[in-house]
Amino acid sequence: MSKKKIIVIGGSAAGPKAAAKARRMDEFAEITMFQKAPDLSMASCGYPYFVGGFFDDRNKLLCTPTGVVRDPKFYWSAKGIVAKVNTEVTRIDRDNKLVEYTNLETGEKGTQEYDKLVITTGATPNMPPIPGVGLEGITTLQSMQDADYLRRVRDDGKIKKAVVIGGGLIGIETLEALHLAGIELTLVELLPQLLVFLDWKMAKLVENYLKTKANVITKNGVSEFVGENGKLTAVKLQNGTEIPCELAVVAIGVRPNVKLAKEAGLNIGELGGISTNEFMQTNDPDIYAAGDCCEVKNLITGKNVLAPYGDLANLQGRAVGENITKGNIAKFPGTIQTGICKLFDHGVGITGLSEAKAIEAGFDYERVLNASPDKPGFMNGQLLITKLVVERKSRKILGAQVLGPGDVSKQLAIWATAIKGNLTVDDMVNADLPYAPPFSLAIDHSIATAHIMQNKLEGIFDGISSVDLKAKVDKGEDLFILDARGADEYEQMRLGIGETLIPIGKLRERLHELPQDKNKEIVTLCKISLRGYEAAVLLKHHGYKNVKILEGGIAAWPFEREK
Amino acid sequence: MSKKKIIVIGGSAAGPKAAAKARRMDEFAEITMFQKAPDLSMASCGYPYFVGGFFDDRNKLLCTPTGVVRDPKFYWSAKGIVAKVNTEVTRIDRDNKLVEYTNLETGEKGTQEYDKLVITTGATPNMPPIPGVGLEGITTLQSMQDADYLRRVRDDGKIKKAVVIGGGLIGIETLEALHLAGIELTLVELLPQLLVFLDWKMAKLVENYLKTKANVITKNGVSEFVGENGKLTAVKLQNGTEIPCELAVVAIGVRPNVKLAKEAGLNIGELGGISTNEFMQTNDPDIYAAGDCCEVKNLITGKNVLAPYGDLANLQGRAVGENITKGNIAKFPGTIQTGICKLFDHGVGITGLSEAKAIEAGFDYERVLNASPDKPGFMNGQLLITKLVVERKSRKILGAQVLGPGDVSKQLAIWATAIKGNLTVDDMVNADLPYAPPFSLAIDHSIATAHIMQNKLEGIFDGISSVDLKAKVDKGEDLFILDARGADEYEQMRLGIGETLIPIGKLRERLHELPQDKNKEIVTLCKISLRGYEAAVLLKHHGYKNVKILEGGIAAWPFEREK
Repeated sequence: MSKKKIIVIGGSAAGPKAAAKARRMDEFAEITMFQKAPDLSMASCGYPYFVGGFFDDRNKLLCTPTGVVRDPKFYWSAKGIVAKVNTEVTRIDRDNKLVEYTNLETGEKGTQEYDKLVITTGATPNMPPIPGVGLEGITTLQSMQDADYLRRVRDDGKIKKAVVIGGGLIGIETLEALHLAGIELTLVELLPQLLVFLDWKMAKLVENYLKTKANVITKNGVSEFVGENGKLTAVKLQNGTEIPCELAVVAIGVRPNVKLAKEAGLNIGELGGISTNEFMQTNDPDIYAAGDCCEVKNLITGKNVLAPYGDLANLQGRAVGENITKGNIAKFPGTIQTGICKLFDHGVGITGLSEAKAIEAGFDYERVLNASPDKPGFMNGQLLITKLVVERKSRKILGAQVLGPGDVSKQLAIWATAIKGNLTVDDMVNADLPYAPPFSLAIDHSIATAHIMQNKLEGIFDGISSVDLKAKVDKGEDLFILDARGADEYEQMRLGIGETLIPIGKLRERLHELPQDKNKEIVTLCKISLRGYEAAVLLKHHGYKNVKILEGGIAAWPFEREK
Repeated sequence: MSKKKIIVIGGSAAGPKAAAKARRMDEFAEITMFQKAPDLSMASCGYPYFVGGFFDDRNKLLCTPTGVVRDPKFYWSAKGIVAKVNTEVTRIDRDNKLVEYTNLETGEKGTQEYDKLVITTGATPNMPPIPGVGLEGITTLQSMQDADYLRRVRDDGKIKKAVVIGGGLIGIETLEALHLAGIELTLVELLPQLLVFLDWKMAKLVENYLKTKANVITKNGVSEFVGENGKLTAVKLQNGTEIPCELAVVAIGVRPNVKLAKEAGLNIGELGGISTNEFMQTNDPDIYAAGDCCEVKNLITGKNVLAPYGDLANLQGRAVGENITKGNIAKFPGTIQTGICKLFDHGVGITGLSEAKAIEAGFDYERVLNASPDKPGFMNGQLLITKLVVERKSRKILGAQVLGPGDVSKQLAIWATAIKGNLTVDDMVNADLPYAPPFSLAIDHSIATAHIMQNKLEGIFDGISSVDLKAKVDKGEDLFILDARGADEYEQMRLGIGETLIPIGKLRERLHELPQDKNKEIVTLCKISLRGYEAAVLLKHHGYKNVKILEGGIAAWPFEREK
């Protein structure tokens, strides 16, 4: 049997994974990986942490766990893979099953045949089509070269003011990195909220937190980069504001690199990514694709999405490596679009559907908010705010958003696995999670969230969101708002929306202070709404018919407070 | 309708939870909670951390999240629950539906009627029936008073040497606490391993780590407490060794407190705990039980177990609170016996079945070990060692054990949720978990573990455990052991079991150095066995028929090494 010829176009995440897995499946295949950039296997998700000074050696972004740089020499000696860097594939010739390429350093051109071809061409950052984009001082954070440039900015310490354009994951990670470099920052987002995959309120809580670190502007795009002598001096916004700065980092999303695939006649999906089946195979059975250049199925809605995440790229690459060597044996079923982001000493993320996405997909859903710590107070427990969305009838988990200084990653991992397992709220109510005080509360935050949701579905917990309460207050609706905390807590911090303080421990004896009209709308609250819940239950038992709990309490109030 | 009379016997974890939930379900029930101890709602799992000085205020163990001590006054004002402390229920009179009780301070006796009764009497620590148990200086760590005593030991700083008897969760937590108090420690365990719920090798790795902090003795029980003037001076072991010490903490397990239940004619299970149905109802329909005094079903084997964990007690209590007020509406399905323990800067735990338990339950299973970091090296990733057990045919996850300085809690939470969801290895292979470098590797440790398991089930990864390899080496079997690491790594650390060093990057060109006999048994290894895996795959492709990978590599080698 002749040796199988495999060509991989792209050497960042999905490509190297596919190549390495193919090698392990077939020792004798001839595997070549073409990489346009000078580096291979870059840990690109780590760029912001290199820029931010979490570590100093750039090679750590390119290394194996034992510290060997993954260069062409490594790929050949350790994996038997020919890696051609600085080499761009310019055309796929499907009829003759070959690729045409150009060495970007020497200009040399060549062709190479394949039996199986893998396209992992990634994605390109979007740039706004506005005046001044060519000025010095404007960059993205997408390549090793971008990372080197921004790291030099940090190390030089000359730049004092910068603007980050785009409030998505990379924008926020970049914001943190440059903040740690001592630069005064403004974050500009065109949409009404940061992190568009979150629901508005969760994003607003992120925004409130980030405002303690940087200037944050939403609902305002960039109209022009202003410069002098070819150098950036300011960013001009659509409303006319000019923000003086010497550096602008653009992070307004990426688009799949599909030029090669499109020109070769491969199917491109509605969202602009390469279409594949669940084996990551294109409409040409000898051509597979993986990573950011592809569309992928959302497992909850069944619809295709663009999900340019490093973890999915690796998993898809692994499946491709098996399929190109052994036939279609490995499926990549799709994504639930789990994502997480570090925000200084907070984390924020989502798995599954947000409320907005659940509406868009037509689900009959219920949602609830839980603000409570991750660990006991005596073990320095930190606040977590979780928004959970479930399908009302099946009670299946549809999605969870988590934010806070607490252990966000574990919470998201739990919900992501629960969604994978088609678990319902009722399953999660009695989940058997690892408990010891250094790691969690006796009732883990995720389980407590399920308890609240179960109570809500059963009609025991009748919640109102802060957004809805604020709207009622602003409209001047006739409400009785009951704060069930202690007087000392009330003095320290309160909403200032006309609430009446009656501590939960006094409520039974002070029921006469409540409205006589048992149909009057009452909203109860406390710091996180545990006591608010108890107060509401108590009032209902005493005949009040229209009592709601402020979900997430004061801890999750996204608007301004009196104190 | 007359008010329902509810009595709860026990005021630690399950009892208060049942009482509080019952109150929220029925505002007008008369709820009384009897507690033999002076304190209520003690966070007993937190005792070791109070003793160890993680915090100084004992009241933090008794407080609500906002700092209110949960005393009888709190229970009455905030929850409308009468809590009688220092009061022992001495008899349950089922015919007349009443309990008899004695106030332990005043000696006063009384009776009180119930409509529904809840037994949450907990468990009592075992004491060895040996001479000297009455000496001063011998304690358990099970009550608030024990915690106060040991904390005074810490604060006084007079005791220099202590022995902890029992290498279970509480023994090890106590070991850490006393170590932090600057006391020289010996841990004594009767069985051949610590943490008996783990498989031997995982427990051995724990033991090796603990030996860096304390003297650890296994396979040796305590035969006598030796004293002078009524005070402990030494612990004598079954092999005759005497260990001088001024303090001994006994942590050799607990037994359910079922005297009251038994005398009342309630069914007791084979393991000595109260028998209940899935509503936590005893054979008397008006009597429920919850917490450490009960038996509970293991959801994987279907057999009853004793699982005295604080989280389960709370979940059971919640179900009971619903059922005693609204009829049997809430099920507590059972446990997968998830447990976790902090070991200084390591964690260790299990969810589901160990290999030993899988054998005992008659499963046809496969197991695999993964030693790899939790995060990228550049984000200071820490090692995790996971042992995964799956059912061979269904490929369902049966259990996972995790150990290391890495994020053990998240890994266990993922596997616990996967077991809850009946997930298979193949589901976990493409799990969509939250990825960003501050939180995980692009391929999370749990997913990598699933990959190895899938490879093993497919016959691509042929592993050998360190225990089996050691046995072969000790028997002098004719093996070729190939270390695929670099020469520098080999110089720093190696097993010294006759291995030959050929770095993975040189292996293809040095194949001639391998045995000519293609049937010869070869074992490949590296630090964590990723390169060991690549070497084995390569050799198999080159015709070697009997190649195995040392699972977990050098990182998970539990025996002595040459370096």
